[in-house]
Amino acid sequence: MRYLLYYWPEIQGRGEFVRLALEDAGARYTDVARGKGGTDKMMRMMEGKGVSTIPFAPPFLKAGKLVIAQTANILFYLGPALKLAPRDEAGRLWVHQLQLTVTDFVKEIHDTHHPIAGSLYYEDQKTEAKRFTEHFLRERAPKYLGYFERVIGKSKGPFLTGRKATYADLSMFQIIAGLRYAFPEAMKKIEVKVPRAVEVHDRAIARPNIERYLNSKRRLPFNKWGIFRRYEELDA
Amino acid sequence: MRYLLYYWPEIQGRGEFVRLALEDAGARYTDVARGKGGTDKMMRMMEGKGVSTIPFAPPFLKAGKLVIAQTANILFYLGPALKLAPRDEAGRLWVHQLQLTVTDFVKEIHDTHHPIAGSLYYEDQKTEAKRFTEHFLRERAPKYLGYFERVIGKSKGPFLTGRKATYADLSMFQIIAGLRYAFPEAMKKIEVKVPRAVEVHDRAIARPNIERYLNSKRRLPFNKWGIFRRYEELDA
Repeated sequence: MRYLLYYWPEIQGRGEFVRLALEDAGARYTDVARGKGGTDKMMRMMEGKGVSTIPFAPPFLKAGKLVIAQTANILFYLGPALKLAPRDEAGRLWVHQLQLTVTDFVKEIHDTHHPIAGSLYYEDQKTEAKRFTEHFLRERAPKYLGYFERVIGKSKGPFLTGRKATYADLSMFQIIAGLRYAFPEAMKKIEVKVPRAVEVHDRAIARPNIERYLNSKRRLPFNKWGIFRRYEELDA
Repeated sequence: MRYLLYYWPEIQGRGEFVRLALEDAGARYTDVARGKGGTDKMMRMMEGKGVSTIPFAPPFLKAGKLVIAQTANILFYLGPALKLAPRDEAGRLWVHQLQLTVTDFVKEIHDTHHPIAGSLYYEDQKTEAKRFTEHFLRERAPKYLGYFERVIGKSKGPFLTGRKATYADLSMFQIIAGLRYAFPEAMKKIEVKVPRAVEVHDRAIARPNIERYLNSKRRLPFNKWGIFRRYEELDA
């Protein structure tokens, strides 16, 4: 099966969590909005043209007749087929639970530069962003990463759920890579306390398909339009 | 099966979305933290005592040997058993997709009074809350509710996915009830544009088990510690 992925073409964004899973598995997929006329196609589907399961926002995935939105939902669906999640219900729900906590974390990371409204520029909410980010770096990032660290300790690692990598581990890689881009100074201090989470990141990079992907043009660089943004004044 | 639900005892909060599904189905469950020593039990499980699938935060559900966290994940699991979701994969993923959009909406509703940090009092982020809520009431609430309105239109209603109610419809009820409590003035204007979503709310109330629940002591009133809070100065 060839999957069709729909996501904004200029950024990694939330689509990247799906892309990493597809790339790691060597799955065939088209990043539709990066092709000619692709963004228009994506917008039409969001308006409900030919789709009964209307997405609220990208990313969404077309797999045969299914159209699935919400990053964690897409990964839940893909997991077993890509061999990046167990097939049994208990195992699948557990990886999904972790991914939903990643989702919550990603939203807070986004809010470091947009705490007031997505419709405003960063420059119009800089004061609030500074205040939000102070709390984020002091309380929230250590809390989330500390949680994942405990999860890896409990499973005995080296991955979140034990000996086998899942899509949640690839998301863990993306979170750490993104936080290092956005907050290089703060992350130096935070990382010391979460060596197992950092090892998940390192092991992801070493996977041949991920290494190949990261060195390809398909991997867009982090930039100032995505979720992870480097604003020096926020990195305390 | 008797389910064990773990959630903060003083508020409706995110636990309420699970409670509504259990109550509607007439399922047997214990609201553990509302019982003697229950909050301690909940905290010990969050520390990982006897649990391999450690929750990041309440609510979580114990169902036999399974311990499942994240509201939408719990509902995904319960849905078919409670006859509040289809059994087939496509149908289950669609209801889950809707629930994950409810989850995103709930987070933004929470942020109307806590846009900077959950660790600060409302009084310490009032200025930011005012600014956040202006955007929320003008842009975000109409956008989310308008999306659900379109979904009901597309399915031909009267429920989100068509003729049968799902747990996502019960969540829709809770969102509208909560927004009416928090923002009575703003909601008067917003509701006019989403009559189908309001009908989902009305139909939920008319369900015998929900009506019984809402009139019971188990239904805590909305209050100033929950997700939906009435601060007159925010309701523009």
